[in-house]
Amino acid sequence: MTQILRIDSSPRGERSHTRALTQALTDALQKQHPDASVATRDLGHNPPPPVNEQWIAGAYSDPATHTEEMKAALSLSNELVDELLASDIIVIGAPMYNFSSPSTLKAYIDQIVRVGRTFIYPDYQGLVHGKKMFVLCARGGGGYGAGEQMEAMNFQDPYLKAIFGFIGITDITFLHDEKTTMGDDNLPAYIEEARQLAMA
Amino acid sequence: MTQILRIDSSPRGERSHTRALTQALTDALQKQHPDASVATRDLGHNPPPPVNEQWIAGAYSDPATHTEEMKAALSLSNELVDELLASDIIVIGAPMYNFSSPSTLKAYIDQIVRVGRTFIYPDYQGLVHGKKMFVLCARGGGGYGAGEQMEAMNFQDPYLKAIFGFIGITDITFLHDEKTTMGDDNLPAYIEEARQLAMA
Repeated sequence: MTQILRIDSSPRGERSHTRALTQALTDALQKQHPDASVATRDLGHNPPPPVNEQWIAGAYSDPATHTEEMKAALSLSNELVDELLASDIIVIGAPMYNFSSPSTLKAYIDQIVRVGRTFIYPDYQGLVHGKKMFVLCARGGGGYGAGEQMEAMNFQDPYLKAIFGFIGITDITFLHDEKTTMGDDNLPAYIEEARQLAMA
Repeated sequence: MTQILRIDSSPRGERSHTRALTQALTDALQKQHPDASVATRDLGHNPPPPVNEQWIAGAYSDPATHTEEMKAALSLSNELVDELLASDIIVIGAPMYNFSSPSTLKAYIDQIVRVGRTFIYPDYQGLVHGKKMFVLCARGGGGYGAGEQMEAMNFQDPYLKAIFGFIGITDITFLHDEKTTMGDDNLPAYIEEARQLAMA
């Protein structure tokens, strides 16, 4: 059975563009895969904690030797990794904040990049294979694409491509809803574009 | 009077390399500026919250119209911005996590990049002038420098340069403590290097 994992990182609710996009794409994917289950992670409203010292000590040591503190620190990480590995299609809503992703999405990334579970160390080989990922971005401004004026300030797409590629997720499609601070006029067209992604 | 702002983003305590470096540099700076006061922000142990919907609504509206919720959401941000603007020398400890900064440092950045206070919109001009910044990095691996093997995966230095440059901080010196996962053998030399930065 297909599992779709929808991850939202906007702290907004109704006013969020990326949530409108992840909703539209998830709905369209469910139509394409009527048997699909949908798992959701709302990083924007329930931010994962930053990794801490016990987390790091646990992640880089033999589970058989873990203290209760290490187990507790790794518990959510294990859950998030299990969920990611069990999913076939991953839909991420990622607004651009200060030319990069919200801190909550970085906190999620730090939780799921796990030695021995999502990548091999020191070979640096990804272990997360056969996934399809969609990253639906919203940006207050515009011109962050290849060859455009603000390209050098786009620290979001290149990093997401690199870090998810690092753990083995290389089939990534981006959609960019730009100039959101100029209003919601273009949102319906982007929502339609997000729906179309399900058919590709 | 000179104010030094020391910002630590490692979640580690005694085992942190970056904390040893920020401590050494801050101590050396105090020797150079005996009248200096030191402000500290421990992002690693007291992470700032991610910005939320009320924060965004408040940051982009007239303070005279702010609700109590908006005021509460912006309170820490105002404090952090005041502190940054009041400081002359900023020392940041930044371990590399998954080829970028810890989520807590991004959360701090999202709190201090403030329209009308640290940059002008829509002109995109920085408002934080006359500061000297030191970024003391630690990386488990090596070869992230210009022309080196892992350069393309260095999403930390270029972003920190860009985002602090965006708000007007352009005098930034980096120090890189590399291959930390191979042990602490090189740490004393990096600590000495950090001390020397105060003399430059």
